[in-house]
Amino acid sequence: MGVTNDLAVFATGSALIPDEMSRFTRFSLFDWATVGLAGGNEPTAQLVRKAALAEGCAGPATLIGGGNAAAATAALVNGATSHALDYDDTHFLHIGHPSVAVAPACLAVAERENASGTAMLNALAIGLEVSCRIGDWLGRSHYEAGFHQTGTAGAFGATAAAGRLMGLDASRMVHALGLTATRAAGLKSQFGTMGKPLNAGFAAEVGVTCASLAAHDVVSNPDAIDGDQGFGPTHAGSARQFAWQGIGTDWVFPGVSYKFHACCHGLHAMLEAIRNLRGDGLTADMVKSVRVWTHPRWLAVCNQPEPSTGLGAKFSFRLTAAMGLAGVDTAAIDTYDDAITQRPDLVALRDAVTVVTDESLADTQTRVTVTTTQGGVLECSHDLAEATDPAMLERRLRGKSSTLLGDDVSGALWQVVTALDDADDLAGLTSLLSR
Amino acid sequence: MGVTNDLAVFATGSALIPDEMSRFTRFSLFDWATVGLAGGNEPTAQLVRKAALAEGCAGPATLIGGGNAAAATAALVNGATSHALDYDDTHFLHIGHPSVAVAPACLAVAERENASGTAMLNALAIGLEVSCRIGDWLGRSHYEAGFHQTGTAGAFGATAAAGRLMGLDASRMVHALGLTATRAAGLKSQFGTMGKPLNAGFAAEVGVTCASLAAHDVVSNPDAIDGDQGFGPTHAGSARQFAWQGIGTDWVFPGVSYKFHACCHGLHAMLEAIRNLRGDGLTADMVKSVRVWTHPRWLAVCNQPEPSTGLGAKFSFRLTAAMGLAGVDTAAIDTYDDAITQRPDLVALRDAVTVVTDESLADTQTRVTVTTTQGGVLECSHDLAEATDPAMLERRLRGKSSTLLGDDVSGALWQVVTALDDADDLAGLTSLLSR
Repeated sequence: MGVTNDLAVFATGSALIPDEMSRFTRFSLFDWATVGLAGGNEPTAQLVRKAALAEGCAGPATLIGGGNAAAATAALVNGATSHALDYDDTHFLHIGHPSVAVAPACLAVAERENASGTAMLNALAIGLEVSCRIGDWLGRSHYEAGFHQTGTAGAFGATAAAGRLMGLDASRMVHALGLTATRAAGLKSQFGTMGKPLNAGFAAEVGVTCASLAAHDVVSNPDAIDGDQGFGPTHAGSARQFAWQGIGTDWVFPGVSYKFHACCHGLHAMLEAIRNLRGDGLTADMVKSVRVWTHPRWLAVCNQPEPSTGLGAKFSFRLTAAMGLAGVDTAAIDTYDDAITQRPDLVALRDAVTVVTDESLADTQTRVTVTTTQGGVLECSHDLAEATDPAMLERRLRGKSSTLLGDDVSGALWQVVTALDDADDLAGLTSLLSR
Repeated sequence: MGVTNDLAVFATGSALIPDEMSRFTRFSLFDWATVGLAGGNEPTAQLVRKAALAEGCAGPATLIGGGNAAAATAALVNGATSHALDYDDTHFLHIGHPSVAVAPACLAVAERENASGTAMLNALAIGLEVSCRIGDWLGRSHYEAGFHQTGTAGAFGATAAAGRLMGLDASRMVHALGLTATRAAGLKSQFGTMGKPLNAGFAAEVGVTCASLAAHDVVSNPDAIDGDQGFGPTHAGSARQFAWQGIGTDWVFPGVSYKFHACCHGLHAMLEAIRNLRGDGLTADMVKSVRVWTHPRWLAVCNQPEPSTGLGAKFSFRLTAAMGLAGVDTAAIDTYDDAITQRPDLVALRDAVTVVTDESLADTQTRVTVTTTQGGVLECSHDLAEATDPAMLERRLRGKSSTLLGDDVSGALWQVVTALDDADDLAGLTSLLSR
C-alpha cells in the first residue's frame, strides 16, 4: 500500500492549501469554464452532448451548453466539450491537460452532492495536484509509449476530486484509486480526431464512476497503481519516485501553463516573444527580417511555411509570426480562417521570417530576432515554463475570456469564480455554463 | 484501415451464422443468465447494483436482480454480476471470459433499441466472435504483461454487438471500434478482488458507450487497433495475424468451454476424468489410492493439500478429487463450506490422493489413475479443450442451471432462450433476469 495509500491519505486529509495553489485553482477553473463555453459549438461537443441527452436520464449534473444528466455522463460530456478547442491549460510535469479531466468530474459530483463552493474548490485543488503527481510519475516513457496522460493521469485526479466530494475515507479512496488503475486509458494515436477530447471526457467519467463504486463499499487491489502488474508497470511508467516528494506540503500544480493563442502550442513561446517586442514599441512597418530559433522537434509539428487554410495557419511559425507582428488577435478562434493566409501585408511579413533550429533550447523556449528597416536588431527570448506575475496572469486570462465569450459573460464568470468561496452551492457557476 | 475495417465489415455485414455457432450462442446466453442470476447475491453484485440504483436514472435496461437503468449502466452492473461467481464460460483462444463482457452490452442495447430475439442473438454471436478474434490477436504476451482479456478484448466484442444492434454502418462501426481502442482496459492485478468481475462490467459499459457515440457520428482514429501506437502495439499485443484468418466464414467461438464445477478451473479436467470413472462404475469404497497428473503450472494455483476452509477447498486437487470420488455435487456453490473439509470419509479419500506433475500435458489436460482395493488400476484422461457432443453439453448446462437456480427457474430460462428466435422482444428473458 505504498503510493496508493499515500495518495489516498493526501486526497482525503485536511491538507492546508496554500494561497498560491488556491489562486491557480481559481485561475484554472475560470479558464476551464471559458474554453468549455467557447467550445460548446464544436462538432465533438455537439455530438457528445446529443448522445448523452438521447439517454433521456435527467440527472443532477449540468451539461455545458444546457441540459442535465447523471454525474458520470455529465463528466464525460463536459470533459470532451472543454477539450474540444484544445485551448485549455497544460502542465509540463503532468505531460498533459489537467483541468479538462478533473474539473468536469469535480463539478458534476459537487452538484450531485450539493457541495459548497469551498468544498468544490478544495476537491479541485486536490484532484489537480494528484493528476500532476501521477502524470510526472508515469513520465515521458509512458507518453512516448503512446499513452495520453490527459486520459490516464487525468482519471486518477478525477477520482481523487470526486471521491473527496463524496466524503470517502482513506480506505475507500484507496479502493477508488485501485478501481481507477484497472480502468484508466487513453491513447495519443487519437490525436487529430474527436478521440482526443474524448480522452479527457472518458477520464472524468472514470473518476466519477470509480469513486461512486468505492462510496458503495466496492473494493479493489489496494496496490494497483505501483504494485506488481499495476497501472504504472503495465503502462510503460517511468516510476519516477521523485514525483511523490513533498506531497501534502509542496504543490506542483501552480507550474501550470495557460494558452493565450488559439494555435499549436509549439508557436506560443514565439508569439509571447513577439508580443513583448511589440510592447517595447516594435511595429510591422519597422520589420525588415525576422529569425525564430526553436527546438528542432517543433519543425515536424508546426512549420508549414506557406499555409493556405485556417487550419494550416494554426501550424505555421512564419504566418503566425507575421500575425503577431501585425497585431492580429491570435487569441480569437475565428482569426484562423482561409482568408487570413492570403492577406498581402501578412504574406509579405511571413516571407521575411526564417525559422532556425537550436538544440540547446528547451521545447518551451524560443528566441526571436528582428532586423529593422533602420538596420537595428531587436531580440527577445521567451520560456513558457517560467512563472508569470499573478496580477499579469489574471489580466491575460480575463482578456482571453473576453475575447472568447464577450465582456458580459466573461465578467460574470469571473465574478462567480472569485465569489465561489462564499457560495453555498454551484448554481451561479452552472447557470453560466448551461447557457 | 486494416484490422479495424475488416472487423467492422464483419460486424455490420450479413454474415451467415452457421448452426454450430447459433447453438453455442444460445448455450452461452443460457449459461450467462444462469450464473448471472446465481451471482446476484454476491457482495460485488449487490454493491454495484446499489451504486447504479442510487443514480436514480430509470432507463430502458434491466438490472439482474431487479431495477432499471440507462443501457451503459445496466451493462456495467450485469457484467460485474454475471462474473461475480467466476462460473461463466471461458475460451482458450480468447484467453478470457467472452460472455460476461458481450452479453450484458448486447442485452442492454437490445432492450433500449426494442430489438427482436433474433436480432439480439445475431449481435451476440458477432460480438462473441469479435472478442475471441481480438483476444487471440492480443495473445499470450498481452496476458502475461498484466492485461485481462476479459476486459480488453471483451470491450471490442461488446462494441461490435452493441453497434450492430444500433444499426451502425461499417464506417460508424470503425469509429466505434476506434473509440474502444482508446478506452479498453483491465488489469489481472485485480484478480482476487471485486475489480475482477468489474473488469467484465467495465468492458460491457465501454461497448455501449462507444457504440452510442459512434451512432451519433462521433469519429475517431480508424486505425487505432493495430495502427501506429494503437491498442495492440501499446498493450503488449502479440499481433498474431493468424487470429484473423477466415473471419466471416469460420467461427472460432464454438471452442468455448463451460464450467461445471464451482471451483478453480485448474481442477476441472481432473473432476471430469473422475466423473467418467464413476460413470464406468467406480465407487468410493473401491478406492485404495489415486494419482493425478497435471501440468506443473497448476501447482502454484490449486494444490492446497489439506484445506480447512470452503475457499481453500476450491483450490485443492486432493480434496475435490475426494469429493468427486464420493459423488459430492461439485457444481453447487454451497458445497464448498468449511465443514466439508472435515468430513471423515472425504479426509480419508483426500489422503489417498497424490498429485504428480507432467510437463507433457497441456494445461487443459489431466490423467487420473485409481488403484482399487482389489488391486486393479483404472485410468482416465480428460482434455477440457476437446469438443463435447452437443446433446450431452445441453444436458450438462441444464443440469448446472438446475443446481444453481432450481428446476423451475432453470426450466423457464431454457424455454425462453430456445424460443428467442420467435420472440418480438426480450421481455421473456428480462422478466426472468429481474427476479
